[in-house]
Amino acid sequence: MPGVHKKIEIVGTSPVSSSDAIKQAVAEAGKTIQHMEWFEVKEIRGRIHGGEVAEYQVTIQIGFKL
Amino acid sequence: MPGVHKKIEIVGTSPVSSSDAIKQAVAEAGKTIQHMEWFEVKEIRGRIHGGEVAEYQVTIQIGFKL
Amino acid sequence: MPGVHKKIEIVGTSPVSSSDAIKQAVAEAGKTIQHMEWFEVKEIRGRIHGGEVAEYQVTIQIGFKL
Amino acid sequence: MPGVHKKIEIVGTSPVSSSDAIKQAVAEAGKTIQHMEWFEVKEIRGRIHGGEVAEYQVTIQIGFKL
Amino acid sequence: MPGVHKKIEIVGTSPVSSSDAIKQAVAEAGKTIQHMEWFEVKEIRGRIHGGEVAEYQVTIQIGFKL
Amino acid sequence: MPGVHKKIEIVGTSPVSSSDAIKQAVAEAGKTIQHMEWFEVKEIRGRIHGGEVAEYQVTIQIGFKL
Amino acid sequence: MPGVHKKIEIVGTSPVSSSDAIKQAVAEAGKTIQHMEWFEVKEIRGRIHGGEVAEYQVTIQIGFKL
Amino acid sequence: MPGVHKKIEIVGTSPVSSSDAIKQAVAEAGKTIQHMEWFEVKEIRGRIHGGEVAEYQVTIQIGFKL
Amino acid sequence: MPGVHKKIEIVGTSPVSSSDAIKQAVAEAGKTIQHMEWFEVKEIRGRIHGGEVAEYQVTIQIGFKL
Amino acid sequence: MPGVHKKIEIVGTSPVSSSDAIKQAVAEAGKTIQHMEWFEVKEIRGRIHGGEVAEYQVTIQIGFKL
Amino acid sequence: MPGVHKKIEIVGTSPVSSSDAIKQAVAEAGKTIQHMEWFEVKEIRGRIHGGEVAEYQVTIQIGFKL
Amino acid sequence: MPGVHKKIEIVGTSPVSSSDAIKQAVAEAGKTIQHMEWFEVKEIRGRIHGGEVAEYQVTIQIGFKL
Repeated sequence: MPGVHKKIEIVGTSPVSSSDAIKQAVAEAGKTIQHMEWFEVKEIRGRIHGGEVAEYQVTIQIGFKL
Repeated sequence: MPGVHKKIEIVGTSPVSSSDAIKQAVAEAGKTIQHMEWFEVKEIRGRIHGGEVAEYQVTIQIGFKL
Repeated sequence: MPGVHKKIEIVGTSPVSSSDAIKQAVAEAGKTIQHMEWFEVKEIRGRIHGGEVAEYQVTIQIGFKL
Repeated sequence: MPGVHKKIEIVGTSPVSSSDAIKQAVAEAGKTIQHMEWFEVKEIRGRIHGGEVAEYQVTIQIGFKL
Repeated sequence: MPGVHKKIEIVGTSPVSSSDAIKQAVAEAGKTIQHMEWFEVKEIRGRIHGGEVAEYQVTIQIGFKL
Repeated sequence: MPGVHKKIEIVGTSPVSSSDAIKQAVAEAGKTIQHMEWFEVKEIRGRIHGGEVAEYQVTIQIGFKL
Repeated sequence: MPGVHKKIEIVGTSPVSSSDAIKQAVAEAGKTIQHMEWFEVKEIRGRIHGGEVAEYQVTIQIGFKL
Repeated sequence: MPGVHKKIEIVGTSPVSSSDAIKQAVAEAGKTIQHMEWFEVKEIRGRIHGGEVAEYQVTIQIGFKL
Repeated sequence: MPGVHKKIEIVGTSPVSSSDAIKQAVAEAGKTIQHMEWFEVKEIRGRIHGGEVAEYQVTIQIGFKL
Repeated sequence: MPGVHKKIEIVGTSPVSSSDAIKQAVAEAGKTIQHMEWFEVKEIRGRIHGGEVAEYQVTIQIGFKL
Repeated sequence: MPGVHKKIEIVGTSPVSSSDAIKQAVAEAGKTIQHMEWFEVKEIRGRIHGGEVAEYQVTIQIGFKL
Repeated sequence: MPGVHKKIEIVGTSPVSSSDAIKQAVAEAGKTIQHMEWFEVKEIRGRIHGGEVAEYQVTIQIGFKL
């Protein structure tokens, strides 16, 4: 990992699972960011609707090369 | 989110995944609590049996309107 | 849980999900450790490649009887 | 503080300030709980609407005598 | 630990020791709660009077089966 | 909260109160960011001058829709 | 901030707001300490009396030049 | 707890127990400090000698009225 | 403490007190480890049975010279 | 520090020391950011190669005036 | 470490490195405190000037025998 | 980082700097461990003797492939 990297913080959502919410966040970030290398999970939470889990919301930090 | 909410802490379990353990916790809490709106994951742990993961145990806080 | 236990720290990886990465870590640890009883998730992170999640990396502590 | 106490977790909201959100949470809790003695702030967050702070949301724990 | 559990937060006090304060908290909680299975210490503090420790105050979470 | 969100970290200041410092941070961020939805307080500190509080400095994370 | 500084920990109280409790703490500390430069909030809690917030208690660290 | 308080940090030691180490810390602090009101445990550690616990070392913060 | 040390993590149990659980952990570790020098408490929890504390479980890190 | 500031998170690397890694991060950030005022260290880690420290990786937050 | 110790919190600064900032803090504290035995790093931050690191600011706790 | 890794915790010491203490820890661990890949700093502290820093003590976790 030589060189300088930046970390940004993104919240992905998914009705399926927390792992899928991470995939959504990375996919969306990849539309504008090049050279993404790793992510770190900071928080897992979610929305409840009608007595059931409606969506998982996962906050991740994404590291990419400047 | 206007109005006052209460948070309770529940531990759900599942042999399948941590996301499924969250669903179990919310479903069980929904039997006695109305107006649940969100959850926050506080801890993920589990039981091992016979050298394999026997169950995921996920502690969540559930927020609901008073 | 009577008796004295030890905890070790293992990082499992999986291209599928964080729950699967935990299973990989427990399975690998089970090759050399007897009497594993529980695990605790300490960190969830992962590697990104080509703009997509390449693998989930989950650090767990495993408790086993001495 | 002799005797045994219980702590519950409440989220109060206010459009005015975080201190006012605490007052709202305590007032609401007081409708059903006797002998409240102290509170501890756990989290301060809020909702933004139209580019401005719409409400402060303060999570507190309230301690009361059983 | 199959099934869903709930955690509540209790503060026990004792003039003797922090371990005794835990026992007081569990004993009091047991008057109204069935199926308590474990506790987790969250905070240890206390009151000082006349230049000496007057009481230990230990906050624990108690887990019990719903 | 469906869709992917981003969080940025801003420090607002105010000579009046910590709640006012949050308002200043949100107002400033709103000049360049659309669709702000929530904030989370990360740190409260401040500057002292002449033996009195000169300003409150509140670090918040702001979440907005991408 | 060249030179060596010391930090002390003070608890201010106020019936009005948490920001006012900070002011009270700084004012009291200023009676015996010169060259105070900044404060950091460590904890916000308070006393409840008669079902209402009786006072805010804010623990701050104050930094001053030696 | 009206008025302004100060917190200092003391490490007490005891070969007997962690609760006794707290008592030692409070007793020693009481030789020079008036109006001590409460303590908060920050860390519990200790020294091992000859394969056995030689002493418990407990770091506490003591709050007293200025 | 010159030289390089290693830390391992052990969970001791005792029906008597948390301080006794630490002693049990150190005694057990001493059967296979030489030159143990200090311990650090990481977690205090326990098992409840029949409405009473059945055992204290204390997780400690033990430092010893390599 | 009057006015509103923003914080970004950067990871600097250096084969020499953690302090040098901070310098690298600040120098790189300075190519695109004006008015940088302070940094806060969030994490120190590194890469090992051939049994030796190959590089220090230090994550810092940089605060700058908007 | 038999006997009772006190901990104070000091911020040292240095334009050279974080390790040098610790030395400055200890040297300054040693002018008025006898029997200093250990330090613990609590925070590493610093000031940026002209796009470069101007000084490292390291907050340490110093333990000394009463 | 495909495959399963283990983390161990080591304390390195150096009279020179915290970065050098990390090097000492890695070098010592390398005598018995193959395939070390990264380290994470967990704690920086040290010993004071004669009013000066006598040694830096840095606790790191080292990750290596099983």
